[in-house]
Amino acid sequence: MSKRKYAVGIDFGTESGRGVLVEVATGREVATAVYPYPSGVIDRALPVPGAAVRLDPDWALQDPQDYIRTFKGTVPALLRQTGVDPGDVIGLGIDFTACTMLPANKEGTPLCDLPEYRRNPHAWVKLWKHHAAQPEADRINRAARTLGEPWLKRYGGKISSEWFFAKILQILDEAPEIYSAADRLIEAADWVVWQLTGEETRNSCTAGYKAMWSKRDGFPRDRFFAALDPRLEHVIDEKMSRQIRSLGECAGGLSPRAARWTGLRPGTAVAIANVDAHVSVPAATVAEPGRMVMIMGTSICHMVLGTAEQTVEGMCGVVEDGIIPGLFGYEAGQSGVGDIFAWFVAAAVPPEYHAAARKRKGDLHAVLEREAARLRPGESGLLALDWWNGNRSVLVDVDLTGMLLGATLATRAPEIYRALIESTAFGTRVIAEAFEKNGVMVNEFVTCGGLPEKNKLLMQIYADITGRELKVTASKHTPAFGSAMFGAVAAGSRAGGYDGIVEAAVCMARLKRESFKPVRENRKVYDQLYAEYCGLYDYFGRGANDVMKRLKTLRQTQRRSAKRSA
Amino acid sequence: MSKRKYAVGIDFGTESGRGVLVEVATGREVATAVYPYPSGVIDRALPVPGAAVRLDPDWALQDPQDYIRTFKGTVPALLRQTGVDPGDVIGLGIDFTACTMLPANKEGTPLCDLPEYRRNPHAWVKLWKHHAAQPEADRINRAARTLGEPWLKRYGGKISSEWFFAKILQILDEAPEIYSAADRLIEAADWVVWQLTGEETRNSCTAGYKAMWSKRDGFPRDRFFAALDPRLEHVIDEKMSRQIRSLGECAGGLSPRAARWTGLRPGTAVAIANVDAHVSVPAATVAEPGRMVMIMGTSICHMVLGTAEQTVEGMCGVVEDGIIPGLFGYEAGQSGVGDIFAWFVAAAVPPEYHAAARKRKGDLHAVLEREAARLRPGESGLLALDWWNGNRSVLVDVDLTGMLLGATLATRAPEIYRALIESTAFGTRVIAEAFEKNGVMVNEFVTCGGLPEKNKLLMQIYADITGRELKVTASKHTPAFGSAMFGAVAAGSRAGGYDGIVEAAVCMARLKRESFKPVRENRKVYDQLYAEYCGLYDYFGRGANDVMKRLKTLRQTQRRSAKRSA
Repeated sequence: MSKRKYAVGIDFGTESGRGVLVEVATGREVATAVYPYPSGVIDRALPVPGAAVRLDPDWALQDPQDYIRTFKGTVPALLRQTGVDPGDVIGLGIDFTACTMLPANKEGTPLCDLPEYRRNPHAWVKLWKHHAAQPEADRINRAARTLGEPWLKRYGGKISSEWFFAKILQILDEAPEIYSAADRLIEAADWVVWQLTGEETRNSCTAGYKAMWSKRDGFPRDRFFAALDPRLEHVIDEKMSRQIRSLGECAGGLSPRAARWTGLRPGTAVAIANVDAHVSVPAATVAEPGRMVMIMGTSICHMVLGTAEQTVEGMCGVVEDGIIPGLFGYEAGQSGVGDIFAWFVAAAVPPEYHAAARKRKGDLHAVLEREAARLRPGESGLLALDWWNGNRSVLVDVDLTGMLLGATLATRAPEIYRALIESTAFGTRVIAEAFEKNGVMVNEFVTCGGLPEKNKLLMQIYADITGRELKVTASKHTPAFGSAMFGAVAAGSRAGGYDGIVEAAVCMARLKRESFKPVRENRKVYDQLYAEYCGLYDYFGRGANDVMKRLKTLRQTQRRSAKRSA
Repeated sequence: MSKRKYAVGIDFGTESGRGVLVEVATGREVATAVYPYPSGVIDRALPVPGAAVRLDPDWALQDPQDYIRTFKGTVPALLRQTGVDPGDVIGLGIDFTACTMLPANKEGTPLCDLPEYRRNPHAWVKLWKHHAAQPEADRINRAARTLGEPWLKRYGGKISSEWFFAKILQILDEAPEIYSAADRLIEAADWVVWQLTGEETRNSCTAGYKAMWSKRDGFPRDRFFAALDPRLEHVIDEKMSRQIRSLGECAGGLSPRAARWTGLRPGTAVAIANVDAHVSVPAATVAEPGRMVMIMGTSICHMVLGTAEQTVEGMCGVVEDGIIPGLFGYEAGQSGVGDIFAWFVAAAVPPEYHAAARKRKGDLHAVLEREAARLRPGESGLLALDWWNGNRSVLVDVDLTGMLLGATLATRAPEIYRALIESTAFGTRVIAEAFEKNGVMVNEFVTCGGLPEKNKLLMQIYADITGRELKVTASKHTPAFGSAMFGAVAAGSRAGGYDGIVEAAVCMARLKRESFKPVRENRKVYDQLYAEYCGLYDYFGRGANDVMKRLKTLRQTQRRSAKRSA
């Protein structure tokens, strides 16, 4: 084909949506556009004038209209910036945070957009980091163990409060009227594809990683759901679907309405929805075992491929064909990484560093990084457990909390900053070692996301602590780039795209030249510190001393009683 | 006597000296004066122009000339403010931090004031919180255990790196030329009395609590010192004195030189030196068992009286007649309290609270206290170990470090502030319970020092956590007030003073009406939190996991290697 063809990828993140326009043949990223969600993360009160609906601390919601606005706020800008002819855009792919889900009616209208449900928080989108469904996750785990559910071992023996059925069960427990009004319970990823094409589809990635579906066994049997709650028995057939579509397939053509939102041609190929982490793997050049992809931002997602199904402690899941056809896709995660550094910068850094940041017109992270980089490993005397936001892998426990140890009267902010970075790197090493112990090799890391761009000290610390080389993807918007790749695959080679994601990865995906290699001298010291980290990890994380959980329970009791008497 | 008589007390603290002028008959505090030491705490570099002598992190020195300047900077001001006739001032008493010690020549000139030694840090005053003599303290403890020294059990089985012979041994190890040039090794308390009277005396309080002397057995035998180092065998006879004088005795009359410094009459009675904590006991109305005096400032000193000699784990010491004649004076301590809050405020509070403090023209502590007071016990979910400056009682271990546990992404500065206060209160409870377990009762606390004046939330938390009432001394300068009482006793009844400290306590000492009583509801929650504190206390403090010590060792290794390569 002589004329250049393009694909668009849209990545729906936690605070914003990001779009990229990519040249299909070369993988050249032609333009990018970012759209911050007007309502952001809704975690204090519903954005409904006069509603005064306050949310409990573990809640996190989103407004589905922000997603529609993201299409309008990015795709036309991509075309405008580049002058690309909409007729040369052959495909569109999207990826999403997950599990981010919502209840909708038959037509696909979110219940929160219906006036009668607008003031009910359960009618809104539950964001991935909505953590209020822990009791429900506990119930699911207990029931699965009691009934000997075979799927449990695919999820490290425990499912998380972030997942699909925990969230559904919370709706059922706390707002049965919403559960009953919801004709459809759907991942936001699939919902936006529905909005684009006018047809409801369900993707294998969220189904496999967040809703206990597998290619061989389908969803858990109805009897399991009935054991959780009789009203839930037929949830799959009533409110979901058993027709699960594979990554790389075409979900349909762009509807005329969505063509107006985006400025693209009606009928443009739209890919089956994907998840931000998983879509990044081929975008990071990874289509074979041995190279772990880390999406490093507020949290870290760890993805690695294997040739067989292994049981790995505390992994989030293993899904056949879940990332790359023909391989088993493993996922693990750390629930707080960039979030912890952001907390530190906002909540615990004294004015002198803020002043230094203003003076150098840099941000506070850069000031702290510079000071922290002067320290040797172990020089601060500090050690932290990176559980400010709980522990996802390998303990799968949201009730664990952060710990800092080794403070003296001489301890200063850059030392704590470094200790926090180190603690998250130790957390990654625990995950990599859990995989290797079970035969899933992790020889190097390919990283993407916000952190690798921002913080070179962090990257070197990760290399030193894990003892592995870290590479970085070339695109700053790796998930969106991966979505564009899937858009090109949805279009297929006859339209100028590709017939498979492995081929697209070879032709389109790129890494930066720069990489981070472990320094032998630092590794030795970090091996000592890692042993200390593991000692504390096991002590506080594996039941020897459940003080963190008892404190959290007491905290909840005291908050409730403070509320009552207020 | 018809004409009113007065006494002066001077309290030599860590950052400043404080003087009070007190009416002897009534205990009315007529005037106070504070003199901040120009050189403060010397912990980075010697204040010698061009010397460029940098100090290691655990060092803390003072300049002896700051003490002389304190006399000049306070006593004349007291007289001037009040118009009191120097002839009506019948006595002068002083108290000091301890063990704060210095090497001097025969004439009493500090070696640091001799040009040949001025650049040698070991020639300066070693302040109580000089912590660099830990290896020497370890050696003393090992030798005492090996040789079965009978005095060891009077000090909780372990002496501290802050004490007299640990500091001497460090001089001998690191600067033998200073040891050998020192004709006298002397507590700063006794040195200032020497400067006032022209005669060297040694007080029973520092001898008993800091130099292992007892009324019945005297100092450890020469053979013990010889076992530490042959050069130390005759240290008592060569550089100290076996003539130990009792509290309440008169050290001599004011010399003409010191009369010029102070504006007082030559010959005015000067009391034998005392220690800030111990002198506060009678000033806090306590002259009987059962009421524990807490001097609450940068650190806490706990003092309680008993009728017999008991062995209490980790107490700093028990000295017969060490506080009040006829009773056993027990001392324990927490090495970091106000220091920890000051660290927090300086090192870990974000700008918004600083701005709020400026706006309300209050200090940052007040802003944090107000926010923290809104929380219920347990509501922050945080728990800390108060070991930022090590643990004095009951673990006697300077290598322990601070720990904070329970942090989440929602944790805010006032919550941490409150958790730090609570941790120090738990530390006090551990100490009180250690005493009671050994038959030394602690029925209530009488408090003095800077903290009770400043922070009512802290006082209530201490009452709630310890389950005991807290009372507060009337004077804001309790140690100086106690020193004035001893000045009145040194003068004796014939000069218009008193013949004993118990009598002076009855006539002069006062408490405030306000006290802090435990709130039953808070106690219940704090009992739970205290159990958690004790669990972590034992785990990290008693050898189950020595991670804090290993981190500190690693930190020292890495600092040294950083220095070498710099």
